[in-house]
Amino acid sequence: MNYSRTGKCPFDAMNEECGVFGVYSPTKKDLGSMVFYGLYALQHRGQESAGIAVSSGDGIIYHKGMGLVPYAFSNFSLNNFPKSNVSIGHVRYSTTGSSNILNGQPLVFTGKRGKIALAHNGNIVNSDQLREELIKDGIIFQTNIDTEVIAALINKYSDKDLIEGVKMAAEKLIGAFTLLIMTKDVLIAVRDSYGIRPLCLGKLDDNIIVSSETCALDSVRAEFVRDMKPGEILVSDKNGTVSFYMEKKRESLCIFEHVYFARPDSIIDGCSVYDARQKSGRLLAKKYPVEADIVSGVPDSAVVAARSYAEESGIPYVEALTKNRYVGRTFIQPDQKSREKYVDVKMNALKFNVEGKRLVLLDDSIVRGTTSKKIVTMLKKAGAKEVHLRICSPIIKHPCYFGIDMQTHDELIGNNRTEKEIAEELGADSVRYMKIEDLKEACSSSDLGFCMACFDGKYPMPVDGKDKDKLRLK
Amino acid sequence: MNYSRTGKCPFDAMNEECGVFGVYSPTKKDLGSMVFYGLYALQHRGQESAGIAVSSGDGIIYHKGMGLVPYAFSNFSLNNFPKSNVSIGHVRYSTTGSSNILNGQPLVFTGKRGKIALAHNGNIVNSDQLREELIKDGIIFQTNIDTEVIAALINKYSDKDLIEGVKMAAEKLIGAFTLLIMTKDVLIAVRDSYGIRPLCLGKLDDNIIVSSETCALDSVRAEFVRDMKPGEILVSDKNGTVSFYMEKKRESLCIFEHVYFARPDSIIDGCSVYDARQKSGRLLAKKYPVEADIVSGVPDSAVVAARSYAEESGIPYVEALTKNRYVGRTFIQPDQKSREKYVDVKMNALKFNVEGKRLVLLDDSIVRGTTSKKIVTMLKKAGAKEVHLRICSPIIKHPCYFGIDMQTHDELIGNNRTEKEIAEELGADSVRYMKIEDLKEACSSSDLGFCMACFDGKYPMPVDGKDKDKLRLK
Amino acid sequence: MNYSRTGKCPFDAMNEECGVFGVYSPTKKDLGSMVFYGLYALQHRGQESAGIAVSSGDGIIYHKGMGLVPYAFSNFSLNNFPKSNVSIGHVRYSTTGSSNILNGQPLVFTGKRGKIALAHNGNIVNSDQLREELIKDGIIFQTNIDTEVIAALINKYSDKDLIEGVKMAAEKLIGAFTLLIMTKDVLIAVRDSYGIRPLCLGKLDDNIIVSSETCALDSVRAEFVRDMKPGEILVSDKNGTVSFYMEKKRESLCIFEHVYFARPDSIIDGCSVYDARQKSGRLLAKKYPVEADIVSGVPDSAVVAARSYAEESGIPYVEALTKNRYVGRTFIQPDQKSREKYVDVKMNALKFNVEGKRLVLLDDSIVRGTTSKKIVTMLKKAGAKEVHLRICSPIIKHPCYFGIDMQTHDELIGNNRTEKEIAEELGADSVRYMKIEDLKEACSSSDLGFCMACFDGKYPMPVDGKDKDKLRLK
Amino acid sequence: MNYSRTGKCPFDAMNEECGVFGVYSPTKKDLGSMVFYGLYALQHRGQESAGIAVSSGDGIIYHKGMGLVPYAFSNFSLNNFPKSNVSIGHVRYSTTGSSNILNGQPLVFTGKRGKIALAHNGNIVNSDQLREELIKDGIIFQTNIDTEVIAALINKYSDKDLIEGVKMAAEKLIGAFTLLIMTKDVLIAVRDSYGIRPLCLGKLDDNIIVSSETCALDSVRAEFVRDMKPGEILVSDKNGTVSFYMEKKRESLCIFEHVYFARPDSIIDGCSVYDARQKSGRLLAKKYPVEADIVSGVPDSAVVAARSYAEESGIPYVEALTKNRYVGRTFIQPDQKSREKYVDVKMNALKFNVEGKRLVLLDDSIVRGTTSKKIVTMLKKAGAKEVHLRICSPIIKHPCYFGIDMQTHDELIGNNRTEKEIAEELGADSVRYMKIEDLKEACSSSDLGFCMACFDGKYPMPVDGKDKDKLRLK
Repeated sequence: MNYSRTGKCPFDAMNEECGVFGVYSPTKKDLGSMVFYGLYALQHRGQESAGIAVSSGDGIIYHKGMGLVPYAFSNFSLNNFPKSNVSIGHVRYSTTGSSNILNGQPLVFTGKRGKIALAHNGNIVNSDQLREELIKDGIIFQTNIDTEVIAALINKYSDKDLIEGVKMAAEKLIGAFTLLIMTKDVLIAVRDSYGIRPLCLGKLDDNIIVSSETCALDSVRAEFVRDMKPGEILVSDKNGTVSFYMEKKRESLCIFEHVYFARPDSIIDGCSVYDARQKSGRLLAKKYPVEADIVSGVPDSAVVAARSYAEESGIPYVEALTKNRYVGRTFIQPDQKSREKYVDVKMNALKFNVEGKRLVLLDDSIVRGTTSKKIVTMLKKAGAKEVHLRICSPIIKHPCYFGIDMQTHDELIGNNRTEKEIAEELGADSVRYMKIEDLKEACSSSDLGFCMACFDGKYPMPVDGKDKDKLRLK
Repeated sequence: MNYSRTGKCPFDAMNEECGVFGVYSPTKKDLGSMVFYGLYALQHRGQESAGIAVSSGDGIIYHKGMGLVPYAFSNFSLNNFPKSNVSIGHVRYSTTGSSNILNGQPLVFTGKRGKIALAHNGNIVNSDQLREELIKDGIIFQTNIDTEVIAALINKYSDKDLIEGVKMAAEKLIGAFTLLIMTKDVLIAVRDSYGIRPLCLGKLDDNIIVSSETCALDSVRAEFVRDMKPGEILVSDKNGTVSFYMEKKRESLCIFEHVYFARPDSIIDGCSVYDARQKSGRLLAKKYPVEADIVSGVPDSAVVAARSYAEESGIPYVEALTKNRYVGRTFIQPDQKSREKYVDVKMNALKFNVEGKRLVLLDDSIVRGTTSKKIVTMLKKAGAKEVHLRICSPIIKHPCYFGIDMQTHDELIGNNRTEKEIAEELGADSVRYMKIEDLKEACSSSDLGFCMACFDGKYPMPVDGKDKDKLRLK
Repeated sequence: MNYSRTGKCPFDAMNEECGVFGVYSPTKKDLGSMVFYGLYALQHRGQESAGIAVSSGDGIIYHKGMGLVPYAFSNFSLNNFPKSNVSIGHVRYSTTGSSNILNGQPLVFTGKRGKIALAHNGNIVNSDQLREELIKDGIIFQTNIDTEVIAALINKYSDKDLIEGVKMAAEKLIGAFTLLIMTKDVLIAVRDSYGIRPLCLGKLDDNIIVSSETCALDSVRAEFVRDMKPGEILVSDKNGTVSFYMEKKRESLCIFEHVYFARPDSIIDGCSVYDARQKSGRLLAKKYPVEADIVSGVPDSAVVAARSYAEESGIPYVEALTKNRYVGRTFIQPDQKSREKYVDVKMNALKFNVEGKRLVLLDDSIVRGTTSKKIVTMLKKAGAKEVHLRICSPIIKHPCYFGIDMQTHDELIGNNRTEKEIAEELGADSVRYMKIEDLKEACSSSDLGFCMACFDGKYPMPVDGKDKDKLRLK
Repeated sequence: MNYSRTGKCPFDAMNEECGVFGVYSPTKKDLGSMVFYGLYALQHRGQESAGIAVSSGDGIIYHKGMGLVPYAFSNFSLNNFPKSNVSIGHVRYSTTGSSNILNGQPLVFTGKRGKIALAHNGNIVNSDQLREELIKDGIIFQTNIDTEVIAALINKYSDKDLIEGVKMAAEKLIGAFTLLIMTKDVLIAVRDSYGIRPLCLGKLDDNIIVSSETCALDSVRAEFVRDMKPGEILVSDKNGTVSFYMEKKRESLCIFEHVYFARPDSIIDGCSVYDARQKSGRLLAKKYPVEADIVSGVPDSAVVAARSYAEESGIPYVEALTKNRYVGRTFIQPDQKSREKYVDVKMNALKFNVEGKRLVLLDDSIVRGTTSKKIVTMLKKAGAKEVHLRICSPIIKHPCYFGIDMQTHDELIGNNRTEKEIAEELGADSVRYMKIEDLKEACSSSDLGFCMACFDGKYPMPVDGKDKDKLRLK
């Protein structure tokens, strides 16, 4: 199975985003443990830091730590959390080097409505403008994360009522956001009006659960109820669970959730991630056949697609690459010079399988092209006669402003190149990308339409045409 | 790809053993870095501790640490190592709970031949007797690892010459051992006369390299030269490289290297691990067909075999299980009660794929059966109509005394049960194991014969019929 | 010498407060290092966490960590700080159990005047009210430290100008506060209008330095210039150094700076801490003589006074108690039951010196009385015939609201007891406290008047008569 | 009080040695805790590492860690230790940079007499020769600490009986050694025939306790019984406690125990450390009077002596120097350049006290002279008109081979200089050392004679005239 992409990051990869998990229970229970397990199952969405907040009678208790979930909690006993009615958690991935516990989430703050914890997955396009406006209002900021802007905005509009405040804030926010908000006795979940990031609803006994992906529901043995709707604000408290809806916008689920981010055992808005990947492979086989001896996939995320390519084409599936499972973000290079050896440490060509063979190699996507180039070179060195790349997504031509770490036009290998030029650049014998229509077809069981702006430039909302690296100079 | 089994351990698994990597260079170089990368590629053979020793003019400098290679060296700069002629490294897996840096390797000691570093992969059957004899000779022991016994034994016979001492010691040792030994200017590699554990020879420019597996040669871009022969003692120093040979014994390469331990991109004694697994799947399909809708493999090690089972049978391959890549030995359970949720955190059934399906599920082996039982239960709960287990190795009926953590007859589910009884025990609709002949055939390209004592009880050497748990009471 | 009181804390002690150190340099220099050394010398004022902020062209870079200064910076190289014009640092002592890096200082925030770092020593009496008002203004709070309230308040009034904002904020604050504030190119130092906490000015080449105590000036070889005046706001930038003054209030330097907090080599507002302690001893000898064989002081802070008591009385000075220098806050008791052995571990009676002797024992103060009781018991057990306590400060009858951890009337042994009753309670043969007039005389070289509210209840500003434990329920 | 000298080390100091603490109880108890507290009280004798071993039915369980006692045990719960009959512990100081947990003690080993734990305080002069002989016997060594040599030697002679082995080994050892040895049911304590290092016997209920110093007996509320005799081998087991005696040698208690090492509240062989220091000051005053305004002592170890100098001379005692209590071995210098500022950070002159004064300054000893030089310079800079050094021990002219880190003749400032030349070198107005006879007189209540070889070159045993740096090249 194929959802772990951490290992790929050092080379050329979109970075993962964040994951959220929350629960409301009408009776006081050990919710911290449940959220811990939920975050564990969402670990692939963020490995930088993890945090859990639980309500405690008159307040909120929380713990955040750096690293994988068990590391983040290695010095903190979950028994320190009281039995409670509400708990939310967050795993974070950050694209900045200065990762820092002060930027960890949930963000816990005290304002007009008392103590509130907030967890956010997404990226706010207008956070700079909002921050400036809030500063004019007299707000001070202690971090540079969007979450703090959202917190201040919610607080700004919460004079009478928190839910009203959440709604008004959500309407001001431009960008992608999935929010979990808790007070000492209420759980609020928000999915932005575009539905860019996933959020689903589950049930376990009398607990109401919200989670970035269904796989985390499975991990705590909860039952899937339904996906949250774009623009939905769900409120759980002692009076039950009700939903409010904001104005609908163009449906824009990030299609990279299917291509790359989500765990294959998750089902997002009605579409199985596994199924979408399988269909992608089949479509690539139909559209871009090539005479070859073997088919293979770059582990882990392209293996499912590669196998269905093989089935469809009748060319046998054979592993061409093996991956060192233990290479992670913790890798500390002995020194600069030995860095170039890195890719050999991370992935290895199976010479036995590829020698003298014409190979079709599937990968999920190509961002900068550096990893792809190394892989092609490695396979050729291992004796592959031909390497034909088949990519399970269209050419990435535009930056993403909604949470994927593809920052500027210039860094994208597909920005101004044809498939032929890309093949040349990578040293591959051919490179073919999926067409946008085909990717749509692969994901056609989705109840929701997609954002494919990185392929077609059609952003679901105005983004000022700014490259993200400018946006990041906060 | 499929070599990572760490995740499986908490349930029911053979534990990995150790890995060794060494290099001799006629000119002084930064060898520490190279050994670091080599160990990195052998990480799957041991995650408990790692260590590297390098020669330094008149002595040996070393560092050992707990955890994965990068963790073990996180507080130690490889730049502290001088340029040198010899370096050896070791990754360790221990079967005892009291893992301890004092038990880390290489073991560095000073005796008749000056300062020596020793790294060992294997298990010595007569270490208790040897220890007792050495104690009678006046030796004191500071650890309970076999390596210390081997060190004392080598020293005992080294009055005139280290190589002579190594040879004589090797002849006294009963069991499995792959040894790397270094002084300030010599590298010695030993493979036991049975060839139980693998050891291969490589070359990079003028460096001579020895490694547990070929994948580590690839990782440092070295060229594979040949496998070490059973009973071979190879010596590299400024005069070049020569080999001595001990009396030949019955060829006994541990067949579990192919079934489970080794990385699939390694080639051991002429036989590709990947190929052996692929053939296993094919043979299982021929011998134990079953009417089913889908075929799948337990990730990671049974996926290759499952895919060839699918190809051979014509039943489509579909993932039935997904694995949380981030679950490792670092997992700290919140508390005892939540432990039972563990398996859901670690592996998840792909309901979408298995619901209503008759499933053939391949696994590499069954030791105690506890994991298999959980997996079958999970798949049935996810809606699988039938689960037919096909195991890529014969029934394990006997303990191993050579380094695999299967300790007593009693714990083995296959000890006194028929396939039918096992199926019942696991809740599976059928369970079929490979026949010994078939496994041999799958590995028939091996230049070396195999030890299959855990299946047939034919130990290559007398083991006193003792269960390992008694042996471990040192 | 006598300024370390950490060791005493677990028993019965006022907790230390905080220390601040800042520097402005007209040319860019390695200021981080200098602040590091400054904090090192102020370590006695706070051991919980330490932090340093330095300006960096267009912003502020900072690091905070838990523990003593070198620990807090053990994972951070000071070389990461750029050469800069401004830097401030802070050592923190907290009275709450939940010490937390999120509460560490300096607090760095972005508001109307851009990026600002703020370090605070003191305690704000009206912080709850201010917090509530600021929440009404729309502010959100992420911690419960006063510093965050001060930051928001400064920002609130900084529409046009930061200095104006600092001034207006300072006028709203009721309580004790010594503030260091920096932007990327300005250093501002504030001493509250009462002068409750000390702050002095130094010079090293062209650097302007501000520090809680003069000992830190000495430690970086800077020259003492003068003490900051109560109500002074000093501003250093490229245009030079100017001071603004707020309305004068009753001079109220906390007299416990002399009795207990400050390092004896510091000179505060013209009065040598060492000298004040020496005079105290002499005055106690004159006023409360007793027929005895030896005089001794509780280490470390009462030794100077005890020695001058001895000189004045003609009774020989002899050590009665020795202290384990290595006992610190890091002490982790093996278990609850062995806690009672603690005091023996921390301090030991010198039986040799006290056996059969009538002893005059000086201590700096008595808060709850628990330590004093243990010490008297220990000395009697060691054979002391009589133990006469002489205390270098008056009876503490009232809580402190300005930064000393004496929280409620009830916990104070002196609250409702006469000296005789206290002696009885402690098992001492007599207890005599200094008179307020005498303590004033001992400190008469001070340029500033004192706050002695804990003795006389005359708070320099209205404190609502609330016990501090109520105030702390934020 | 004055026993902490850690802080002084970086400048110019003898390094501390080790401390041992052991207990035998006829009934099984929580002895680990008691040893923990004992070591805590002996912390001044070694801060590098700490370890505790306890018997456990059929074996020995132990834990060792780096740093101060509470740090060394911060990741280990003392509850892991079973109730037991025997336990020993060790705090270690090492003079080598490469401090290493592998060198920690107690050393636990298995030999002819089963499992044994060994803790050692002292230094073996002939350890190189013994090591070589043992290597010839076939022994291998894994560390370069003397303790391993002693362990092998004890084992060598223990064919029939452990006590016999200990005795024979002790007779082979040349040098200083205080040993604690335990099996699962016996405690053995050894003090070398010269009595170089102290060892005393205590009692708590039915527990027999041995400790380096009496202060540790006090800390666990045990009763002092008597000092161990030079050459005594004490054995405690279920049959009671008996002593064996080795041949008597010249009594040679290291006089530096009184001058510098021991805690002032300890009484060693009948002589109070406090008393010896007090008398030293008095004698210095009588022999080397000087016209001066104030007397002071270098904190901490010279304060007692300085005070009695003041009393005897009639010149008032005043602190001239204050010490930063928080400076420890954990100090990590920001960088090389800022190292020179170090001494200001560690100690500070009390300008207020010394300005314009003629000062008599007492120190315990002068080894290399570097610290003394810095102190004199600092005092002069602070305005002292004259600085007269009075040293509480004679001129050190010879290296120590018994555990004090004074390694070669060349490094000793007193090696070839007169008092006048030394004064010149240090910038002092005069320097006078105690005479050997006077130091003897100060310690005249000792039941034991002293080793004063560092003053008079009369080593109690042959030391081959080798400088220690040669001896250390093991």
